[in-house]
Amino acid sequence: MVAACQVAPVLGDVEGNLARATGAIRSAAAQGADIVVLPELVTTGYVFTDAEELRPYAESVQGPALRAFATVAAELDVIVIGGFAESDESQRLRNSAFVVDATGVRAVYRKAHLWDNEVNIFVPGDELPPVIDSLFGRIAVVLCYDIEFPEWTRTAALRGADLLCVPTNWPATAVPPGERPEEVLHAQAAALANRMFVAVCDRVGQERGVHWAGGSAVIAPNGYPLALAEAGGAEQTLLSVCDLALARDKASNTHNDALRDRRPALYGLLTAPARQTALS
Amino acid sequence: MVAACQVAPVLGDVEGNLARATGAIRSAAAQGADIVVLPELVTTGYVFTDAEELRPYAESVQGPALRAFATVAAELDVIVIGGFAESDESQRLRNSAFVVDATGVRAVYRKAHLWDNEVNIFVPGDELPPVIDSLFGRIAVVLCYDIEFPEWTRTAALRGADLLCVPTNWPATAVPPGERPEEVLHAQAAALANRMFVAVCDRVGQERGVHWAGGSAVIAPNGYPLALAEAGGAEQTLLSVCDLALARDKASNTHNDALRDRRPALYGLLTAPARQTALS
Repeated sequence: MVAACQVAPVLGDVEGNLARATGAIRSAAAQGADIVVLPELVTTGYVFTDAEELRPYAESVQGPALRAFATVAAELDVIVIGGFAESDESQRLRNSAFVVDATGVRAVYRKAHLWDNEVNIFVPGDELPPVIDSLFGRIAVVLCYDIEFPEWTRTAALRGADLLCVPTNWPATAVPPGERPEEVLHAQAAALANRMFVAVCDRVGQERGVHWAGGSAVIAPNGYPLALAEAGGAEQTLLSVCDLALARDKASNTHNDALRDRRPALYGLLTAPARQTALS
Repeated sequence: MVAACQVAPVLGDVEGNLARATGAIRSAAAQGADIVVLPELVTTGYVFTDAEELRPYAESVQGPALRAFATVAAELDVIVIGGFAESDESQRLRNSAFVVDATGVRAVYRKAHLWDNEVNIFVPGDELPPVIDSLFGRIAVVLCYDIEFPEWTRTAALRGADLLCVPTNWPATAVPPGERPEEVLHAQAAALANRMFVAVCDRVGQERGVHWAGGSAVIAPNGYPLALAEAGGAEQTLLSVCDLALARDKASNTHNDALRDRRPALYGLLTAPARQTALS
């Protein structure tokens, strides 16, 4: 069972945020969760002004935050995926995600596509999303704005991801009546195009005037939601039964397969150097 | 104004289908349409058993079907996009799309990703989707199953498409209550990821036991629908005001841009030779 724990971190309150997050993990595990997804930057909050303000709260992979998550993962025998502010081996700040399980830290991912003021705080990652094996299936992770790039989610699927976890802090935008937040649409798109499960864990609350969308969602490989956060922005945990083995079947019929039908020899433009939009 | 004319072609009735299609174009133009999108294979119908059965109905780009569409486009001063069964310069069968306007045939596109039994009938195209300039903006075209490949729709956006037209014959699949057909989700995803308009024109009716989804849709660059076909599978025309210039703005904020924020140097896996899913 996959859980998305949509909590409300408090800016700069690392100790309190860790308590909130581990409390949510315990609650989800008690309800049967095997894989627990937390929001982006769950230990620190998000709306820091600049790198200097964030730096005191950033930690290395060996720091107390990931040790605490690994401890609770071992105690409960769950896999936990979430976001943290990383100070890397060169003391550069990274908007990172972790995957921990009973054996410790399985992977760290550094966000490759930075959002808004993040460009003034973090150094972007240059590595593909990790895809790690587990008892339940293969788990990949990207962060928030990354999911707007179908190229990126595809690289996870091509490397075998059955479940893509997306720790997120999605600023609330106008959503037309009857529609879903943008992040949910991106998650549905990633799931459908790649026939994989996608679990977005957003946050709620507000910081310095920023309100979050609270658009957590668990999406099936057919692109339709298994669970969606209720509107209103309250803390809540989504719990969905996800048989990750279903994501191994990419076939639509006897002739078609979502990955094998790609035409990679025709996709060269996607790797051409960035430039302004053609012609404009 | 963009129109999607969701008509019901009859298998093998080229003359009748042309009459139906040109009638729909006239009606759309009378309501103010500047750009009219028709379904895939609108002149022939879809469910042919094999190449031999389809061959008598296939035409060259110089054939009577495209001449008829060009004539009505010139008479009404509209741009028409639709699908036809093409016999190419080597008499190979292609599942193709045309773009015609008052000046004649502007582009022909050959479907690159073939669906189901199409692999036994057509030769897939090897060229990128065309992007043609017009008084209203830049218009690109792909066909039906192509839209399941975000790589492919991205190539159109990277080459400047403001409006992606998608002539479609989408076999009906189970849609959960309150959800939209898969084709609509793919269209929303392509629009949102690329901040462009997307107009899907599906068909209705049935042929040899196949029912179509009738999921025509016009989607705004924010990923939300401007117009959706009513459920029930009736012939209908969607009409949407689309200011294609809005698709030139790819910015989310002062730091972010949907195309410039791509990390093409990291996307090399997308062009690697096709293979089985990793690890499976």
